[in-house]
Amino acid sequence: MARIGIIGSEGRMGQAIAEVLAGGEHALAGGVDRGGDVTALAAKADALVDFSSPSALAANLSAARAAGIPVLVGTTGLEGDHHGALDEAATQIPVLQTGNTSLGVTLLAALVKKAAAALGPDWDVEVLEMHHRMKVDAPSGTALLLGEAAAAGREIDLAANIESGRGHDFGGHTGQRSEGAIGFAALRGGTVAGEHSVILAGEQERIVLSHSAENRAIFARGAVRGAAWLIGREAGRYTMNDVLGL
Amino acid sequence: MARIGIIGSEGRMGQAIAEVLAGGEHALAGGVDRGGDVTALAAKADALVDFSSPSALAANLSAARAAGIPVLVGTTGLEGDHHGALDEAATQIPVLQTGNTSLGVTLLAALVKKAAAALGPDWDVEVLEMHHRMKVDAPSGTALLLGEAAAAGREIDLAANIESGRGHDFGGHTGQRSEGAIGFAALRGGTVAGEHSVILAGEQERIVLSHSAENRAIFARGAVRGAAWLIGREAGRYTMNDVLGL
Amino acid sequence: MARIGIIGSEGRMGQAIAEVLAGGEHALAGGVDRGGDVTALAAKADALVDFSSPSALAANLSAARAAGIPVLVGTTGLEGDHHGALDEAATQIPVLQTGNTSLGVTLLAALVKKAAAALGPDWDVEVLEMHHRMKVDAPSGTALLLGEAAAAGREIDLAANIESGRGHDFGGHTGQRSEGAIGFAALRGGTVAGEHSVILAGEQERIVLSHSAENRAIFARGAVRGAAWLIGREAGRYTMNDVLGL
Amino acid sequence: MARIGIIGSEGRMGQAIAEVLAGGEHALAGGVDRGGDVTALAAKADALVDFSSPSALAANLSAARAAGIPVLVGTTGLEGDHHGALDEAATQIPVLQTGNTSLGVTLLAALVKKAAAALGPDWDVEVLEMHHRMKVDAPSGTALLLGEAAAAGREIDLAANIESGRGHDFGGHTGQRSEGAIGFAALRGGTVAGEHSVILAGEQERIVLSHSAENRAIFARGAVRGAAWLIGREAGRYTMNDVLGL
Repeated sequence: MARIGIIGSEGRMGQAIAEVLAGGEHALAGGVDRGGDVTALAAKADALVDFSSPSALAANLSAARAAGIPVLVGTTGLEGDHHGALDEAATQIPVLQTGNTSLGVTLLAALVKKAAAALGPDWDVEVLEMHHRMKVDAPSGTALLLGEAAAAGREIDLAANIESGRGHDFGGHTGQRSEGAIGFAALRGGTVAGEHSVILAGEQERIVLSHSAENRAIFARGAVRGAAWLIGREAGRYTMNDVLGL
Repeated sequence: MARIGIIGSEGRMGQAIAEVLAGGEHALAGGVDRGGDVTALAAKADALVDFSSPSALAANLSAARAAGIPVLVGTTGLEGDHHGALDEAATQIPVLQTGNTSLGVTLLAALVKKAAAALGPDWDVEVLEMHHRMKVDAPSGTALLLGEAAAAGREIDLAANIESGRGHDFGGHTGQRSEGAIGFAALRGGTVAGEHSVILAGEQERIVLSHSAENRAIFARGAVRGAAWLIGREAGRYTMNDVLGL
Repeated sequence: MARIGIIGSEGRMGQAIAEVLAGGEHALAGGVDRGGDVTALAAKADALVDFSSPSALAANLSAARAAGIPVLVGTTGLEGDHHGALDEAATQIPVLQTGNTSLGVTLLAALVKKAAAALGPDWDVEVLEMHHRMKVDAPSGTALLLGEAAAAGREIDLAANIESGRGHDFGGHTGQRSEGAIGFAALRGGTVAGEHSVILAGEQERIVLSHSAENRAIFARGAVRGAAWLIGREAGRYTMNDVLGL
Repeated sequence: MARIGIIGSEGRMGQAIAEVLAGGEHALAGGVDRGGDVTALAAKADALVDFSSPSALAANLSAARAAGIPVLVGTTGLEGDHHGALDEAATQIPVLQTGNTSLGVTLLAALVKKAAAALGPDWDVEVLEMHHRMKVDAPSGTALLLGEAAAAGREIDLAANIESGRGHDFGGHTGQRSEGAIGFAALRGGTVAGEHSVILAGEQERIVLSHSAENRAIFARGAVRGAAWLIGREAGRYTMNDVLGL
């Protein structure tokens, strides 16, 4: 049983992580928010999760280093300086920074890369996603992550091979599918938490690799598993792939 | 066992219909093409199927009327005059004109209309289709037909409520789904003959109504069933819905 | 805005209905449990929902009749006598008794019946369901309801045409699919709230009609919608089909 | 362009391979059947495919060794002696023996193994398949192959962990899903060529890995690709995984 400290404990992810800890095998060491004492939190924790803000990152990493415990960073909006700070901290403690803590999505991306590499350019790749009616952007960040995985498997540049939003000029002529394209399509409706499929379509056969989330708790669950996994590792930078042994 | 005569027998649909007749319960009465003797064909047939050209329609209808046998017309590109001729022929013989002879698609459209009417505007409607990589337009004609069915069930105008090709401005902000919209998305890849799904997404539940075709023979099969069904009916205009008893 | 009174308010469904009312367009008139005063509740409600026990049914119906308000009964385990009491109450007030209050499942069953009737016995019907790993029976009650709908559409007896649990004798010879059979298959795993698909498979084409629930709140939501719909109706027995206008 | 010789050229697979060669990048070197001259065929081929019978295997391998060309063996019903002969031949020429030449299925099995290993026993594994109404056994051979892949990833014995054909005692009590089980379910209907899905269901998220075949030509296509890939390799035994670089 690991004691996990939450930085940003009143944010949406912080609360979700506390709920996962309340119902799971690991324990909540405590939580802090803007202005809270991260050093005191680190002193009683086996690992920290940080879902606060980029401006707090340096101080959070210092507290983790002082306590000699690992930290999983899920804060969004990091820039070059922040990654420098992460690298430096990683010389002393285990550090895992990620924009997506879902175990399922992490695995799916690895499978997509492998499939795209094995099948080659003769198999067309399409990325389909469905989300609730309130979502304001398309494609989703996860769809892009999956498209990047396919492009990496194919050893091509995603940006130069995107075919997205077919039928935008409604009823218009689209022409045949571009050779080597990675296609994207977005469905919106109801309260769907998030579903992604990568379709690899070849001559008379098809592979479909999908992930569906029942709700957003999966991200909190993955963050807890990631933080617990870091405990006892050597200093260094890790990814969710490492947590899954990929 | 009905004897079916094919007008346009060397076209793609004509050939497919001949193949279905060769392997099925009904018989091929014969076939004609441009310049062929439709009157002679009608004399030895119990029903005609016409997949030739709009310019031949008037003569084909005359031959059917003279023989007193029904005709199923699948010719595309018909205009107002042609429909007038169909109406007139229908005063004397059974006439069925349609742009889609698939039994499955016909049924799906009827189910979509019923579902959209029952669930009302609180359930978001999305139409998803997948076709082979060579298809040059999007959405497919069948996707539009299904969207029309949903709009009819909702008693709204489809054209004023379309949301198609999300993510066309890749990575851009799309805003929330428009209230009451009917969404369209298109996948392309491999050799997929044709798959359509209509998704009705409500609060925490979803209905999905789908059709998939293994190949294009289903259109020929539906044409044969439709033509055979017309035999012995009263004069009048019929639809594929009538064939299915919908 | 309707005021809904809950009989059995501390049961699982009673609590779920209270939650739906707290977040929706209708209001909670109050709730009672074993030994509570249903007459007082009925006096301040526009409709009652009863998810208590068969033994309380007669008294609950009396209270509704005395107040002249409709009642939706979702109690399970009713027998002949209870249905007699429901019929009698229905001479004075609107009564809706059902074992499944989901709007989506109600609609799906109606679509399945229509599809099975239209397509006829040449199209094979399969019912597939997936539920969480804790479910102790198979097929699910909803799968049976959908199988009954298909059998009704085909005008056959379900019990005489079931083909369920193929591969039970693992790796064994099953023989070809029985002509006219309605097949059932069950998947179990994870925390899936409930997914059902009815597959109609014909020659080279397929129709799939599916419902998925994100959680069990959909049953509470349907109960509220049903109860609100009953208000102002003529006395009589109604079904969820009536609520959806099917 | 490789010249491929077919042993068993009049069998179903032999004919399908000839069709693939007629329409593809490689050439047909010729074909033989029972009693035909394999040595003469080998003399004009760059590789052989053998879909004949176990009793012919030894002679076929001898001919390939004499000509110094690789052989892909898809013959079913091989026993211990045959594998000994394959091993011996593999000291001199490249040999690939397999029961499933589909590239997509080969890849899917590799992905399933990887996913089952990464996710561990907390994720429930279910194998679902659908085939045409004439299929006489369940589960399919491919479903078993996928179940074996999942068991290998989990490092468990498949035979000891099978849960198949739920609901066989219709309406009966099945009990909760067994911990660590690998479940199997089979759908039958219409003319479906073959669809397989492996579902990994965890806490509130799910991964689904699927393959669908439009027809059986994919096996011929994979055999041709496998045979062509063997040309120029070192002597040894290979698998379809090697062809895909897995």
